[in-house]
This record gives sequence, structure tokens and C-alpha cells, in this order.
Amino acid sequence: MKLESTSEASRTHSEPFQLSRRAQALTSSVIREVLKLTEKPEIISFAGGLPAAQTFPVDALRAACNRVFVATPESALQYGPTEGFQPLRQWVAEKHNVDPARVLITTGSQQALDLLGKVFIDPGSKVLVEAPTYLGALQAFSIFEPDYMEVPTDDNGLQVDQLSASLADGARFLYTIPNFQNPTGRELSLTRRQALVERARALGLLLVEDNPYGELRYSGTPIASLHSMHPEGVVYLGSFSKILAPGLRLGYMLAPASIHAKLVQAKQASDLHTPTFTQRLAWEVLSTGMLDQHVASVCDRYGKHCAAMLDALSRHMPAGVRWSEPRGGMFIWVDLPPCVDAMALLQESVASQVAFVPGAPFYANSPRPNTLRLAFVTVPPAQIETGIARLGHILARHL
Amino acid sequence: MKLESTSEASRTHSEPFQLSRRAQALTSSVIREVLKLTEKPEIISFAGGLPAAQTFPVDALRAACNRVFVATPESALQYGPTEGFQPLRQWVAEKHNVDPARVLITTGSQQALDLLGKVFIDPGSKVLVEAPTYLGALQAFSIFEPDYMEVPTDDNGLQVDQLSASLADGARFLYTIPNFQNPTGRELSLTRRQALVERARALGLLLVEDNPYGELRYSGTPIASLHSMHPEGVVYLGSFSKILAPGLRLGYMLAPASIHAKLVQAKQASDLHTPTFTQRLAWEVLSTGMLDQHVASVCDRYGKHCAAMLDALSRHMPAGVRWSEPRGGMFIWVDLPPCVDAMALLQESVASQVAFVPGAPFYANSPRPNTLRLAFVTVPPAQIETGIARLGHILARHL
Repeated sequence: MKLESTSEASRTHSEPFQLSRRAQALTSSVIREVLKLTEKPEIISFAGGLPAAQTFPVDALRAACNRVFVATPESALQYGPTEGFQPLRQWVAEKHNVDPARVLITTGSQQALDLLGKVFIDPGSKVLVEAPTYLGALQAFSIFEPDYMEVPTDDNGLQVDQLSASLADGARFLYTIPNFQNPTGRELSLTRRQALVERARALGLLLVEDNPYGELRYSGTPIASLHSMHPEGVVYLGSFSKILAPGLRLGYMLAPASIHAKLVQAKQASDLHTPTFTQRLAWEVLSTGMLDQHVASVCDRYGKHCAAMLDALSRHMPAGVRWSEPRGGMFIWVDLPPCVDAMALLQESVASQVAFVPGAPFYANSPRPNTLRLAFVTVPPAQIETGIARLGHILARHL
Repeated sequence: MKLESTSEASRTHSEPFQLSRRAQALTSSVIREVLKLTEKPEIISFAGGLPAAQTFPVDALRAACNRVFVATPESALQYGPTEGFQPLRQWVAEKHNVDPARVLITTGSQQALDLLGKVFIDPGSKVLVEAPTYLGALQAFSIFEPDYMEVPTDDNGLQVDQLSASLADGARFLYTIPNFQNPTGRELSLTRRQALVERARALGLLLVEDNPYGELRYSGTPIASLHSMHPEGVVYLGSFSKILAPGLRLGYMLAPASIHAKLVQAKQASDLHTPTFTQRLAWEVLSTGMLDQHVASVCDRYGKHCAAMLDALSRHMPAGVRWSEPRGGMFIWVDLPPCVDAMALLQESVASQVAFVPGAPFYANSPRPNTLRLAFVTVPPAQIETGIARLGHILARHL
């Protein structure tokens, strides 16, 4: 009743039409607002989450596009099946050694998060997330009004020993990013993956494994996915945004059969299907076998950026500041001394023409204000040096 | 409590993981299942809802695609703003004489329906729909568990005089397709549009005007949109699926400012943004000014199909059968005598190699089983004649 009267009040004052409860709670993303501040060309921005446009395989995509227009223009422009373009599903299935019938092509990985919300979350449902976690996942799930519970993380990722039976009890799923997590850049160790799968089995807990960054590895050896260890208990989310191009908005989900069927129905209601044209385009370019070499060249570039930032941090950060040392991905996570508020720091930092994203919005429940995220892939190494030196200088004044 | 125990039971027996209440209620679309039956090449199918692939402007799109790859390949492949590609928003704004800030580009019109569900529908919210209405809208809204109320329709569309204050009381919106409605092909008369806007204003009722077919007009003169009469009280949905190509999955919404802001936030959570590449492609082709002539040629073709089907119906249908006489769009709606069940008729019909969609699934609450939908755009006129003759023969046996 309280909710009703609140919404009636807001209706009278600002809204001529009655919004849903979830829409009344919607607010613009903090990161979105930060990014608006940092879009000036004179600012060295470590704030963005974009891949470097120079890495996009433009020539290969142009050639693939021409082939689509020659070979199958009409079917590439017609409605298609909700599950996705069959040869692309087949390509994904072979990559992951699963039945193509388990593959659902999505309009970017973000849509996969929306579909998971639709299929699993009722108002008040318990959902487990890492602390911190991907802000876009929190936005997608929050539409469905879950009750979040945070699982702590450390340098080796999710702290599996903190995943107690009482924490997991009644949870609809645990959402995790085991490889080069956004925002921390950390990866979940093999030992912990094995322990997580074992515990999830024992607890009957569904795992959602989001892996947009796994192929961007600059050192160390690949670690088996949770999905490969436990396909009947894991929904796996893949993306072409970081290995081909995000503007195509192409991702995919691998799910156990009964869940797959529900996801397909939810997808049909959401956008009928992902654009046929971009799916054909991606398949045409992937079927040339260009991906391995292309990803290697992206990793070569990003790895140098990552090394440059880690080097600059070690030289310019004052004592008391800690940061993650990613072996891949796009992000470094910085822990500041408890006395520093990253949101206040950002004001000063932008005045000195350097930007980052404060860490607090990446926490579902208990933000740690003395954290921040640095993205290293779009800034040239020389500017990384300059930007981190400025940031170190500002921080030194604080400590 | 009853819901909980039901879901626990189903979990034990068939589902290892707990689904949301909405997902438990999801079922596959009846039309989807019908279409699977009718995909054999020997069947003359009036069941589909697809535009004719021969009408797609392949050459213009191929040329536009090449221009995108020459001019702006990197930004066309990069992430973009949630609201959409600015020049495409501008194009839409000029077409509708609105502020570009009110335009939101969507991943097909279907996504617009999903976003409306997110922003307006709580479980149990009253939503008004036409009887019958577009099945995909029912699917999209139903995810959010509304309580539908039907407004009756006749040959002139929605019966505005049936829209009483008690029917509208508390309704989140009224969803209507004023032009060549799916499934009936009917259009709402100007007098009724004026009356509808007047009543909506008086009742404080938000109108959702879905207009995917409005430009496919074969006779008569265009009628003003509800949105043009009452922009602050109407959310308008437009689509490029029927005038360019559905495989691009491009649509748009025009909404009052406060609603627009919420829709953008919901869109960001849903798929970040519609693919940049397809938006640039559409804008490149639209900016050549090819649309008017292209739409005229599509209308020329579809109008002949429509006339052929109306002519065939008048010669082959037995007495007691009535049908709509559309001035545009893709569909004709058939009213059978009350003794005939269209679902049973479909079995016989498929045995005679003719298919249609039974009308019952297009009703939110009170299905009329003696109705069916015929799509005329993809079947050549000679086959339309054969198919309708067969259908008339089967019906004659029933009457």
C-alpha cells in the first residue's frame, strides 16, 4: 500500500501517466554520467569500457559484407529464426563442443542478461553476485527487482569458501565473470573453479558464467570454463564485441535444454530475433578462419597497453595504493587507502585532465568508495604514462 | 502461497532450477507451431507474416553498405549511444515533425513493446488492447503479467464508444494499431481517431499507437496519426521492417519527454543500444531519398496481391463467410459462421496444401474460434486464386 501511495504522489507531481514500480526506481547509470564529463578530447580517459576501434577487422568485414550481398541478400534481409542463424549457431557449438540446439544468439551479451532476468527473477528473488561486479548486469537484473546478495572476491576472484549453504539457499543463480572480470581484471583460479562447481552441484545452485574477455589473454595459460566442467548447471554467455566489433551487437548463450527453451521464448517476446544481417556478416567473416590470428594481434596490442599501465602504476603510485595485475582483459582495479573517496578524487582528476570510473557503482549492496577502475586499451602507451603520473601526483597530495 | 507450492512441485519434477513466475507461464506461440507445419514448399501458405523478399532494396542497401565501409567503418562498428545513431534519429524526427530528442531507435518494433512492458506494466496492471490484436504485443506485454481488458472492434477499427471511464480506470495504456491492423487489416476512421484522442485526454489514458503498416496503402487517403493529434499523450511505434527490410531489426519510438527518459534507461539495460552498423546502413540508404519511390513500388506489388485475394474470396467463399477489405497492409481477416472452428479447419486445409493462421490466438481474453487470418503479400496472384479456391471448397463442405 505504501508503494501505491508513493507512486500516486509522484504521478500527481511530475508524471501524467502511471509508471511501473521498476521504472520509478530506474536511474541513469553513474558511469554514463561520468563518461559524459570525460568526452572532451583534451582529457586522458581511463574511464571508457570500449575496445580500441583500430583493432576492428574492417577489411575482413567489408569483404564478408560483399559476399553476403552476392550470395544470400534476400535471406540476409528477411526475418529469421529466434534461436539465430543456423551456421553461426553451429560455429559457436563447435567452438564450445556443445549441441547447436543449445545455442541462442543474442543482441549482444547485454540482452543475455535481460533474458536471464526475465526467466529467473521475480520481485524479491535472491540473486548472488560478486562484489564488485559488472554494472550492466546489475542494471539488467535490477529491472526484475531481485534481492542481491554479495559474495566477496580477492586477488584470485570469487571467494568460494564464503559461498555458504545459507547464502545460496533459495538463490535463483550466482552471476560470475571468471576471466579478467569487469571491473577488477582478475581471473578465478582453477582450484577455485573446481571448488565452485562442486559447491554449486551440492547446493543445487545455477551458475551464470559471463565471459566477454576470456580470449583477451596476454600472459598465463587459459583456464577451463565453468561451463565445460558442469554444462547442466551453468548458463554460459559469450560475446563477439571484444573479438570482432561491438557495433554488431552479437553475443550468445549456452544453456541446459529446459532453460534454453524458456530463454528462446523470452527472446522472441523481446525482439523476435537478433538482426539476420549482422549474424550472416559475422558468420561470413568467422568462416574464413581469421579469428585466431586477429585475436592474437588484438592481444599483442592490448598486452602492451596493460604492461605500460602496470609499469606506470608501479612508478607513480604513492605507498598505500594497491592494484590488480591482470593477465588479460581491459581493466585494472585500484584500491586506495580508506581515507580517499574516489568520487571526490574524480573531480580533482578531471580538473587535471585525467578520468577514471569510481568503483562504488560496481557494488550491488555495500560500495567501497576507495576503489576505482582504469581501462587501458584505448589510450596510447605514452598517454598512459602521462595520465597515471598525473593521477599519482594527485593521490600523493591526499596521503 | 499457492503459486509457490505449484512452482516447487514443478521444480521437483521437471526443472532442476527455479524459474520466475513469468517464465513458468511462458508457452510457445501457436502461430510459431502452425508455421512449422506449413513450411513445406508444396503448401500454399497464407499463414506467414513476412514481407516479400523480392521487394527488399538489395542494390541500394549494397551501395549504402559500401559507403559505410568507406566513410565511417570504425564508428559503424563501435559501441554507440543508447538513444540511437543521431542522423537516423534526425531523419525520423523530420519525418514526424518532432524534436529528435524524443526519438529512440529500437531493435525492431518488437523491442519497443518489451520496453513499454518494462516501463509501464506491474503484475496485475490493467492494459487495454483491441480484440483481436497483434499476437507479438500480447507476448511482449505478458512477460510483465498485466491484466488485459479487451476493447471491441468492428469494420472501422476500435469501437471508441465502448471505451468507458470504468474500462479505462487505472489502465496503464491502450495499445492500438490504427492502420491496416494485424490481424484484421482494418483502419481506424478519422472520426474515431478524433473521438479516441478526445476520450483519452478526458480519461488521462496513455495511448500506444503501433504503426508498422501505415505506409503500405493501396487505396484511400492517409489518415492523421493519433500521435500527430496528441503528441503528449501518445507513444508512437514506427518500423523499417515493412518499408526497408525486417532482417535489419530497426524500429523507433516517439514518446513524451518524461516517458522517453525511462524508455532509454530500460533500453540501456536491455541491449545497450541497437546495432550501430545496421543504423548507419539504414541512414545511408534513407538519405539517398529512395524511400518514396521504393515504397510506391512495394505498394504497387502488394496492392495487386490484395486485389487478387479479395477477388478470389468473392468468387470462392460460400455464403455466410465474411472478410475485411483492407486498403493496405498485409492481412485479410475472415469471419466464418459460428459453427466452424478455424483450428479444426486448419487440419483439413493443410491436408489440401493450404495454410492460414486461426484467429483465436489474437484475442487476449475471449477468443473467437470462427475467425482466421490470411496474409497475401508473399503468394503470387495465380497461387492466391488456387489457394482460396481450395479453401472455399473445404468451407463449402462444412456449411
